[in-house]
Amino acid sequence: MRIAPPEVLDARLAALKARLQQHDLDALVVVSLPNIAYLTGFFASAGLLVAMPDELILLADSRYGESLAARAQECPFVQPRELSPGESYDAALVEALEPLRGNRVGFEAAHLTVRRHLYLTRSLASRGWSDPLVDTDGLVEELRAIKDPWELSRIRDGAVRLSEVANCILSNGLAGRTEAEIAAEVDAELRRAGFERPAFDTIVASGPNSARPHARPGPRRIEDGDLVVLDCGGVLDGYCTDLSRTVVVGRGGARERRLIEQVTEAQAAAFAAVKPGAAPEDVDAAAREVLAGHGLADAFLHGTGHGIGLEVHELPRVTRKRAGYRSPPLAAGMVLTLEPGAYISGWGGARIEDDVLVTESGAERLTT
Amino acid sequence: MRIAPPEVLDARLAALKARLQQHDLDALVVVSLPNIAYLTGFFASAGLLVAMPDELILLADSRYGESLAARAQECPFVQPRELSPGESYDAALVEALEPLRGNRVGFEAAHLTVRRHLYLTRSLASRGWSDPLVDTDGLVEELRAIKDPWELSRIRDGAVRLSEVANCILSNGLAGRTEAEIAAEVDAELRRAGFERPAFDTIVASGPNSARPHARPGPRRIEDGDLVVLDCGGVLDGYCTDLSRTVVVGRGGARERRLIEQVTEAQAAAFAAVKPGAAPEDVDAAAREVLAGHGLADAFLHGTGHGIGLEVHELPRVTRKRAGYRSPPLAAGMVLTLEPGAYISGWGGARIEDDVLVTESGAERLTT
Repeated sequence: MRIAPPEVLDARLAALKARLQQHDLDALVVVSLPNIAYLTGFFASAGLLVAMPDELILLADSRYGESLAARAQECPFVQPRELSPGESYDAALVEALEPLRGNRVGFEAAHLTVRRHLYLTRSLASRGWSDPLVDTDGLVEELRAIKDPWELSRIRDGAVRLSEVANCILSNGLAGRTEAEIAAEVDAELRRAGFERPAFDTIVASGPNSARPHARPGPRRIEDGDLVVLDCGGVLDGYCTDLSRTVVVGRGGARERRLIEQVTEAQAAAFAAVKPGAAPEDVDAAAREVLAGHGLADAFLHGTGHGIGLEVHELPRVTRKRAGYRSPPLAAGMVLTLEPGAYISGWGGARIEDDVLVTESGAERLTT
Repeated sequence: MRIAPPEVLDARLAALKARLQQHDLDALVVVSLPNIAYLTGFFASAGLLVAMPDELILLADSRYGESLAARAQECPFVQPRELSPGESYDAALVEALEPLRGNRVGFEAAHLTVRRHLYLTRSLASRGWSDPLVDTDGLVEELRAIKDPWELSRIRDGAVRLSEVANCILSNGLAGRTEAEIAAEVDAELRRAGFERPAFDTIVASGPNSARPHARPGPRRIEDGDLVVLDCGGVLDGYCTDLSRTVVVGRGGARERRLIEQVTEAQAAAFAAVKPGAAPEDVDAAAREVLAGHGLADAFLHGTGHGIGLEVHELPRVTRKRAGYRSPPLAAGMVLTLEPGAYISGWGGARIEDDVLVTESGAERLTT
């Protein structure tokens, strides 16, 4: 996999530095692995980061010793710290924080567990720290919401490949095969297309199963006339793309075709509402209004979309307005899915999903 | 996928009831998705549970409405609570806790984030709760560490299928193909063997790459004489299995063959140390001692093993003794990996991993 070059990571560190200053922080303990990958280019199943304005202390265990050394060699602002034998991440973090006594140190409240927080605060207190750690929310995630050109190139590339995989699967013919067989073929095609892995469990839902938005592919054999929802995604160089298509197998009935048209119309309305400055809930409302106009208000069982990037669900959230939560407005450089759906229990459902870039003037579809 | 039948879930609830009584708790807020799946048979990407001695309140959003209703219909002790449009999980949880005012309510400190904890405690306080939520650790995970017969049947089945996948891949010949090609073939074979998905990113590491325990499969073409580490796992009916094999391609050199023998010897020593009542760190020490005897003390870069089940890493942890952490002793019914390895930077490495059941009298290999 390709990793963002040092100058890209350097620019991300500069952006983080500004965020730290805004929040009057001298350092931030980063525990979210996608956030660590974003700032350092270190992709692993474990790790911790102490981010300071000009330096990133990266902690990892000895399984990742070589990768850790490689990151540090490539990026002069990454200070590697390999755990010693038998040392825990939490103990190593306390050691790494030691020189920061008296500074304002933040942590990621949406990712740090209560257990680790208790351990950290008790350990630091026993070493004479008097200032509490500062809880922060979304400092790195908000940077990640606006993709830099390097990220965009990866997502564009992934979106083209993912579209080709979906087209290939749908043009191979579905009738007579099981959902599970087709899902396995999707996963194999994703690998063949160069993706590191599927971005999530591939969904192939046919007939009445298509009425469940998160159905698992099973032994059901697809029949002529079935609605089939295919929802799949791939990870390319660490970046997720995500796409859904709904088709009627064979000639199909008028009702099935109409449902697909109605959902497609809802997606077009959401697409037309995407522009810098728009509130995500207004994009959601645009899709919801179309479906309500077709009598499908109660059939739309989820939000209209979500940001994609290093994670398959990230900022912004394109959902209904929620008490106590305000999503930041859309901005150029965000990449999000638009995926309205309508689901009629016991009969069937449809979902149409594309990945969309917010541009200076509106929106651009990345999947085709 | 097959889900544990109601009588199995009933027995798990009875075991949880005893744990709640031990800890003087009237209820437990469960946020870990594998813990929720264990107690309710509800497998989803979101959900929350309020577990009480004789009742489980299961919260899920409308994407999962059908599954939620199905779980409740099958299991009379599951009380379904579908989120209303625009309602957040956290707000729904506060509502569900409302009738429990004045009771001792625990939460999972290793899973609940500081942000959610803050929201919960503030919301409950504003409704007049005076008692704090009680932090708990591993209540459900410790139950999960001992597999019930239904779980064992799923893991046994998975282990046999996974062994066949590995044997098939290794007997197909590796020379001349790239790591990435072989990894894709592994994933396709996993699906063909009936697994829902790989349990983790498949590792195929050849030549010098085999010196990195968590190498990612890349474009390197495998050559005669290479050490190749294959590490793969599958999820069957929600349960993970995990296996590693190391081979020398073609005739190979004496040094490569010796390394594999030494790691195999270390695994045999660990296997001989497994029995009910044994401390996990003693099993780790048994493997470590063999490798140290071969001058490979510093080449063994990770722990000897870990429990497997609904998660690919769960209790027990078979690692070195760690300051401030005591692992519970091994007990009959636990299933764990034994996977010593030795890694020589720039040259190559080896890892041999099997899944092992702790029996009344010792241990049984599940992978072959």
